[in-house]
Amino acid sequence: MNASVLAIDVGGTKMAAALVEPGGRVGAYERIITPQAPHVDSEGLWRTLLALIEKLPVERLAGVGVGCGGPMAWPSGEVSPLNMPAWHAFPLRERLSELFPGLPVRVHNDAVAVAVGEHWRGAGRGRPNVLGMVVSTGVGGGLILGDRIIDGKSGNAGHIGHVIVDPDGPACECGGRGCLEAIARGPGLSAWAREQGWTGETGKELAHDAARGHPVAVRAMNRAGWALGVAIASATHLCDLDVVAVGGGLSQAGPLLFRPLEDTFRAHAQMDFAREVRVVPAALGQMAGLVGAAAFIFGADRYWTGD
Amino acid sequence: MNASVLAIDVGGTKMAAALVEPGGRVGAYERIITPQAPHVDSEGLWRTLLALIEKLPVERLAGVGVGCGGPMAWPSGEVSPLNMPAWHAFPLRERLSELFPGLPVRVHNDAVAVAVGEHWRGAGRGRPNVLGMVVSTGVGGGLILGDRIIDGKSGNAGHIGHVIVDPDGPACECGGRGCLEAIARGPGLSAWAREQGWTGETGKELAHDAARGHPVAVRAMNRAGWALGVAIASATHLCDLDVVAVGGGLSQAGPLLFRPLEDTFRAHAQMDFAREVRVVPAALGQMAGLVGAAAFIFGADRYWTGD
Repeated sequence: MNASVLAIDVGGTKMAAALVEPGGRVGAYERIITPQAPHVDSEGLWRTLLALIEKLPVERLAGVGVGCGGPMAWPSGEVSPLNMPAWHAFPLRERLSELFPGLPVRVHNDAVAVAVGEHWRGAGRGRPNVLGMVVSTGVGGGLILGDRIIDGKSGNAGHIGHVIVDPDGPACECGGRGCLEAIARGPGLSAWAREQGWTGETGKELAHDAARGHPVAVRAMNRAGWALGVAIASATHLCDLDVVAVGGGLSQAGPLLFRPLEDTFRAHAQMDFAREVRVVPAALGQMAGLVGAAAFIFGADRYWTGD
Repeated sequence: MNASVLAIDVGGTKMAAALVEPGGRVGAYERIITPQAPHVDSEGLWRTLLALIEKLPVERLAGVGVGCGGPMAWPSGEVSPLNMPAWHAFPLRERLSELFPGLPVRVHNDAVAVAVGEHWRGAGRGRPNVLGMVVSTGVGGGLILGDRIIDGKSGNAGHIGHVIVDPDGPACECGGRGCLEAIARGPGLSAWAREQGWTGETGKELAHDAARGHPVAVRAMNRAGWALGVAIASATHLCDLDVVAVGGGLSQAGPLLFRPLEDTFRAHAQMDFAREVRVVPAALGQMAGLVGAAAFIFGADRYWTGD
């Protein structure tokens, strides 16, 4: 048997770990709800991750790949996930390297891992220029251009959520205003819908109500689709993309989200090179981040530029 | 003597040609006003370029590099410059290859050449992630990420002028709406100023009047600076840049343009990685496009991905 990669996906809601084969197939898989501060401290969270890994039949490994919520110091892998306050500058890469001496351990942003997964084995397969997106509690992404991951100055390239779609729009948690994320992230969208009289709570409920025809929920999906369409048009013009793969919980709304997205995108992206872009749902679903994390090892020539 | 590159910069206003040394120094240099249709046809324009080249003391050459107004088919180099209607799908690269058999001939967008020049020998020197911009009759640009030119699917990456800054803003010649270029290009800006009672004609006059304190002209510079600041913040978030180098005629307005640009940029780009970006005037002035064109040959490993 060829060595697998231990792939890890660390998020504020859940942690997942799997053994991913060289071809990208996900073998043994385990997940667990992420314990929440203040019920857990930094070491408690680490022990939770250890326990998760120990459930897997780990034998011969090619390396360890991790997608983790940002921000983080990259490539050194000290993570400070916004949704996991128990970890602040936690040396995740170093700890895992101590646990697996002699193996390559590579940690990157979770949305970047999703984008890489979609490029390697998902909706962007075979296309050199791909923007992968996660539309969920936040709006994140990753860029692959010329068949190589784009990291930028500090590993932060791909922040499509902070492309500005309405400069006078709502304040964003980043400190700016009118970012895509400020409008289209699940909590932002459901807050907007509640202001219009909708009575649900989560983005997931909102997508569900939109599917059932609730008029405010439908308008909320139009609003998110509009913001996504504007941001994707800007990204397409700047980066001359082949494919944009949109994943994350909100993308589950299907045509209710993708139709207004496509309409807005087409209205703004009229130059020949931009019209050719395909905006499609991500293909790997919940597994995208794990598959991408494995690609940091198996596809290091294209997907890993750090040390 | 080391072989030089014959560098050519083809624009709707002027054509320039120079011999550029391996280190990037511009030696012999010639320029000419571009003849305008209908006073010139396709072959007449080609003969004008030939006459320009013949003025140079061309001896041993390393190759021929060209920056030309877009759009064009890339990398095949059939050019259809918007501002030079006499050339439509003109096979510029092929013609030059026939003229200089055995030598590499490489043709790219003129704004991309400027960006490459600024990365190789200008304001972005030594920085791996650079957006170079030309703010003039249009707003163009080029991207260098990870110390390599980004071409995208069709050589069209770098179209910062069509990053959307006001989705409900003025119609853009690209067919979209609210693009940076629709607001900040010279003719768009002076048209806006005339609506407000200014009586001049060109963007250059507008910048001049702003420097003398004409209130409408100053407001016009604020408007351009605002639009540039929003677009540059979006590009910074998406690409995690080190430096943005802004050139072109309008950038001659200096602090009148750069101050509102910086204010808007700082208001929107608040995350740590984005705050570190420097937005600076381009350093090479009129020579940037020629220096960049030479880099398509001398720096082909980084700056040329075509055939």
